[in-house]
Amino acid sequence: MNISHTLYSGAQGWDKLQDIILEYSKSGIYILVDENTNKFCLPDLQHKCRGLENALVIEVPGSESNKTIASIEKIWLQLVDGSAVRNSLMICLGGGVITDIGGFAASTFKRGMNFVHIPTTLLAMVDAALGGKTGVNLNAIKNQVGVFAPPQAVFIFSEFLSTLPTRQILSGYAEMLKHAMIDGETLFGRLIDLSAPEQISNEKDILESAAVKMKIVTEDLDEKGIRKVLNLGHTIGHAVEAYSQKNDPDPLLHGEAIAIGLVCEAFISMHMLGMPENDLKRLVSQVARFYPHYRLKSKSSEELLTYMTHDKKNASVSKLNFSLIRSIGQPVYDQYPGEKLILESLHFYMNLDAGFPW
Amino acid sequence: MNISHTLYSGAQGWDKLQDIILEYSKSGIYILVDENTNKFCLPDLQHKCRGLENALVIEVPGSESNKTIASIEKIWLQLVDGSAVRNSLMICLGGGVITDIGGFAASTFKRGMNFVHIPTTLLAMVDAALGGKTGVNLNAIKNQVGVFAPPQAVFIFSEFLSTLPTRQILSGYAEMLKHAMIDGETLFGRLIDLSAPEQISNEKDILESAAVKMKIVTEDLDEKGIRKVLNLGHTIGHAVEAYSQKNDPDPLLHGEAIAIGLVCEAFISMHMLGMPENDLKRLVSQVARFYPHYRLKSKSSEELLTYMTHDKKNASVSKLNFSLIRSIGQPVYDQYPGEKLILESLHFYMNLDAGFPW
Repeated sequence: MNISHTLYSGAQGWDKLQDIILEYSKSGIYILVDENTNKFCLPDLQHKCRGLENALVIEVPGSESNKTIASIEKIWLQLVDGSAVRNSLMICLGGGVITDIGGFAASTFKRGMNFVHIPTTLLAMVDAALGGKTGVNLNAIKNQVGVFAPPQAVFIFSEFLSTLPTRQILSGYAEMLKHAMIDGETLFGRLIDLSAPEQISNEKDILESAAVKMKIVTEDLDEKGIRKVLNLGHTIGHAVEAYSQKNDPDPLLHGEAIAIGLVCEAFISMHMLGMPENDLKRLVSQVARFYPHYRLKSKSSEELLTYMTHDKKNASVSKLNFSLIRSIGQPVYDQYPGEKLILESLHFYMNLDAGFPW
Repeated sequence: MNISHTLYSGAQGWDKLQDIILEYSKSGIYILVDENTNKFCLPDLQHKCRGLENALVIEVPGSESNKTIASIEKIWLQLVDGSAVRNSLMICLGGGVITDIGGFAASTFKRGMNFVHIPTTLLAMVDAALGGKTGVNLNAIKNQVGVFAPPQAVFIFSEFLSTLPTRQILSGYAEMLKHAMIDGETLFGRLIDLSAPEQISNEKDILESAAVKMKIVTEDLDEKGIRKVLNLGHTIGHAVEAYSQKNDPDPLLHGEAIAIGLVCEAFISMHMLGMPENDLKRLVSQVARFYPHYRLKSKSSEELLTYMTHDKKNASVSKLNFSLIRSIGQPVYDQYPGEKLILESLHFYMNLDAGFPW
């Protein structure tokens, strides 16, 4: 299934969105928002597009802790109350939580109603809203439940980023770095040299980063092969994220955890696959420049390993399956570094707060 | 997607099932049962197949009222606890509730684990287990939530029917009649002339009836067109079923409600599409022979109409969309008889307890 043609942006994007809205205005439009996008993004959408006057707005909390089946059930019930049918349209307006749960709620409502994504965070624009993964967490383990269901279209409108806090921009930046590490030196070189967060969210970089992901998922929608390379940084990153959600009053954002995962998995890539040490240095310097160091204790390692073995990407519970890189632009998947090297990579990160080892 | 080759029966079926079990024995096998199939069918399965020693048995209540997202959540949690992965296999051993919720739980667990169905009721063998519809009810409205996800294989072993109560056999018979009305006089003539319930469950009739459904769903897995013909009897039948579940201490079984739906929709077919009156007579006589008359009051009609407008098959809430027949073997879909004729058909059924109108 070629889904790469479903990505729209700029003026052409607004035109396409208008067409879709008018197409569905008779069979019912349902706009899923969180408390922020309801306030900051929905008015803009309603101002720019005709045909949304009768759309039902469904608000759910946009935090990761609300990415649960209970939220999905609330959405289903509001769809029933609002007389939604299979030919209706859901517009998911928000960050990755909204696109993940909106996509899941829509694709399971009456065995599949139509939906489009309008991501409003950098993270969702370059990653979460792309590629048709939908789902919720189960007992705080990420994305245990979901389906592969590509949206009919994804719209990238970078104007929605203007009100986004810096931490959120940086969260998206980690996924942009990941895409660049997979794609090659041209994009990586441009991103790794940015000196301030304000330089991050320019449309050219966003669209190029999104295109990296779309190209890969188009080849392999349901993750049988090449798509796995997108898990770079995520085997460890997801574990750090779950750990932080359990232990911290103000937990790490997804991308903040992924930045740590990228450092650890680049360390593993260097030791296991001969990735040049200089690439690890460039990555570590930039992560240290943009993200505060996250304090992990040595004894946290065991807890992190437990989260990893539960993570959805492992085809076998006895082996932890990583996606790594041989060098910038040369991703590989189905790599099994083993417990020792995983622990070493965690300790490498932990020790960074005492200064770089170089 | 051609899924008609995934139907197995008899000795060849047991061989195929054995192959699949051995293929998945290392990545984990999970057997979903209800209280009855745990007791009456699982021992037979374990006796006949090697490689199930380490399979985790998950029991859930097999009644329609437990076809809820809460049951699905319990299954997901047991899969997590049992370390299931995407490459594991779920074997759904039971009637339509088990195949519907098992298929939904499996196809949404980690975005899709493998599953096969071993239907143990006649209804599931000729209908529920076939065609990849999975799902649960929401607020007692049937199948509001679900996905299209075909099982890897469906096994029809008629020996499982030997312990099934007559009411359950008759419930499956209604769907066999429906398939025969869609398929043609050869199968219909054979089924409509059966004089006792014991004659129903012979393997030839079961496999032919299942083949009618498989042929249609193979052409149209996600119900964009021709598959709708399978809704014959179901627009009204589902409403009667929901009504009975709400109002009766011992509610109608699915097929018992569908038998009523078939009579009403055959009545509509006659008045709207010129279906021969003699076919309505044959159907009414046989339904009267095999099923007790269900008492509906005139004032129930409004409640039934409300259930119909909520039923998932209606593309638009303002119009009730029916699948009907011009004659035996000539199904048509997207028919809109309108409120008056629908009410007349309900009254036709209600008045049958005073004797046939002929």
